[in-house]
Amino acid sequence: MSQAILNVEGMSCGHCVSAVEKAVKNLGAVARVDLPGKKVAVEYDESAVSLDAIKEAIEDQGYDVV
Amino acid sequence: MSQAILNVEGMSCGHCVSAVEKAVKNLGAVARVDLPGKKVAVEYDESAVSLDAIKEAIEDQGYDVV
Repeated sequence: MSQAILNVEGMSCGHCVSAVEKAVKNLGAVARVDLPGKKVAVEYDESAVSLDAIKEAIEDQGYDVV
Repeated sequence: MSQAILNVEGMSCGHCVSAVEKAVKNLGAVARVDLPGKKVAVEYDESAVSLDAIKEAIEDQGYDVV
């Protein structure tokens, strides 16, 4: 499993945490959101999903991966 | 129809707007959220639902009606 920590702008509440975690989960990966830290720790199988695809899924929810 | 404007603390994003509007709608009333103004305008039929019930539904979503 690969791991990465993304800086994500725009998450403001528990609904946002759920939206990000669900979007990443839908790709078969795992996200753990640090809301005050504006970070998302992701764990994923590189042979199944790319980090770019994960970033895109988060951005599709309306947040900026910076 | 009766109308009221509530001051609501804790709403931070579009998800929060949806949560509040849906909770009020479930009572058969209508809510319009002013996110930056921290206000919720409600329109309801007093013979069907009380303003207290509407306030409670909003608080049940995790927000403070002040």
